[in-house]
Amino acid sequence: MKALAVDLGGSHATCAIVEDRAILHSHTLATEGSKGLAPWLPLLAEALQTVAREAGAKPSECAGLAFCFCGLVDHASAKVTSTNAKYDDAPDLDLRGWCEESLGVRFEIENDARMALLGESYAGAARGFEDIVMVTLGTGIGGATMIQGQLLRGKHSQAGCLGGHLPVLFTGRRCTCGAIGCAEAEAAGWSLPEVCRSTRDFASSPLSKENAITFERLFHYADAGDQVAIEVRERCLAVWGAATVALIHAYDPEIVVLGGGVMKRASTILPYLQNYVNEYAWTPWGKVSVRCAQLGNNAALLGAIPLLVGPPDS
Amino acid sequence: MKALAVDLGGSHATCAIVEDRAILHSHTLATEGSKGLAPWLPLLAEALQTVAREAGAKPSECAGLAFCFCGLVDHASAKVTSTNAKYDDAPDLDLRGWCEESLGVRFEIENDARMALLGESYAGAARGFEDIVMVTLGTGIGGATMIQGQLLRGKHSQAGCLGGHLPVLFTGRRCTCGAIGCAEAEAAGWSLPEVCRSTRDFASSPLSKENAITFERLFHYADAGDQVAIEVRERCLAVWGAATVALIHAYDPEIVVLGGGVMKRASTILPYLQNYVNEYAWTPWGKVSVRCAQLGNNAALLGAIPLLVGPPDS
Repeated sequence: MKALAVDLGGSHATCAIVEDRAILHSHTLATEGSKGLAPWLPLLAEALQTVAREAGAKPSECAGLAFCFCGLVDHASAKVTSTNAKYDDAPDLDLRGWCEESLGVRFEIENDARMALLGESYAGAARGFEDIVMVTLGTGIGGATMIQGQLLRGKHSQAGCLGGHLPVLFTGRRCTCGAIGCAEAEAAGWSLPEVCRSTRDFASSPLSKENAITFERLFHYADAGDQVAIEVRERCLAVWGAATVALIHAYDPEIVVLGGGVMKRASTILPYLQNYVNEYAWTPWGKVSVRCAQLGNNAALLGAIPLLVGPPDS
Repeated sequence: MKALAVDLGGSHATCAIVEDRAILHSHTLATEGSKGLAPWLPLLAEALQTVAREAGAKPSECAGLAFCFCGLVDHASAKVTSTNAKYDDAPDLDLRGWCEESLGVRFEIENDARMALLGESYAGAARGFEDIVMVTLGTGIGGATMIQGQLLRGKHSQAGCLGGHLPVLFTGRRCTCGAIGCAEAEAAGWSLPEVCRSTRDFASSPLSKENAITFERLFHYADAGDQVAIEVRERCLAVWGAATVALIHAYDPEIVVLGGGVMKRASTILPYLQNYVNEYAWTPWGKVSVRCAQLGNNAALLGAIPLLVGPPDS
């Protein structure tokens, strides 16, 4: 089965035609989220027509268009509900109408985290599983949840995707979301510099000489034996461990899939988290598997088929 | 519509016939969970026949029997999956077969926390809502979750009911569940004495002279101005606040219903938690309402109709 897919990020959009678990053709456009979404829609439609033609297919042969959006989405009504300085006109657009007019196919929309989970469940690290938590560790901590084969969405589309915002330190830092001590406020890219600076003896660490404190630098200096970097690294791992246990207790998954830029250090993070979960998660039925995402930037596109036609027969 | 209901606790069982949102007749038997469940089944069947007769009804006029069990249950297969030193033979019993033979009616079983949520949603504090988190603050912290009118259960029946076991202090105490810093390990009846004893200047507090440190005593001495009691009370409130925000972020509810023995101090706890949620929960769609459970011990029995026939038409 074929499907069209758009993966819309803040500065680019990838338009693709997929067939089952393969991307047949794709084309990436530069965009500017600050200019809204409306100006880009004709270009997206044209690119989708092009990739279909390159694959020798007509849009009408496709199950539909799966649109992956970088903001809050109400899947049922196919509307964008909230944006964050990117494509701010999107809530007012009739995207389903645009799709039907310009491509003549069915339209479904979902946010990027849920699309990535669908892709990993259909064609990646979570293939064969129906009970999945996905966590992306990067500048922030994102995620999505599938329970018994169904994406968890909730009344306001917020269920299952705020895994970075479960407080793991009730005495901790104020998060950008407004809560206190979220995993994201204690161990993500944006909060890492502040966490480092508030660590004892920070001034003695080579981290204090860096213009930008990143996880890459943190792991680098920890490997080199810097005590401050080691202490912060261990603290971040413990935060992610507690967050993972919280997600397991909240959603009852069989597998946790970890993605995002921080997972470049999977060789450190993955065994730590698997051991943490084995030791501390309460799962009398067995052990939750902790794995790395496999599909990288292709995950959302490969979520097109399950978004449009549902999970495969198991 | 009428239904039969059993609410089975560790030392007693209440058998009832309900009609819609009213308990028509009920009869409470003393039991002993340590003796297993099988010896009590004939007595339960007899009591159910009796309450039906007292209501002038036959079991066959009832929608079925809703059985509320104090342990882990797999609702789909109608089996008890795990017990904790109470009715330990229950996983091996064919309860559906017993019900059909002795009463001739349909059988559904669910755990106590989910049954209480169903009751509150149908006839109590959460009436009219379909997106509900229920939390019971007592010796432990229990709970259940409903999303878009459906109980959240998950693959192993653990989803939505471990709200007391989301870690809120990743550096905290080991919980009885095995995890670190669960809300239950930081602020519940069983952990309160240890939390008090580890508070600075505990020996100077009248709490240190108590044989049993309970929330009743804690609130009593805090009201009287004891600084240790005030400090522990504020810490417990902050733990419950963080746990409530975690549950809101996890499940996207419109209402949080609080029950359990600790809510005798609702006059302190409820406004604190409503303010905490207003201040710290990330709910761009509006405000989550925090309310007290209304049905007390009747909640599980009044969950019988929604368990057997589903949510009412909204």
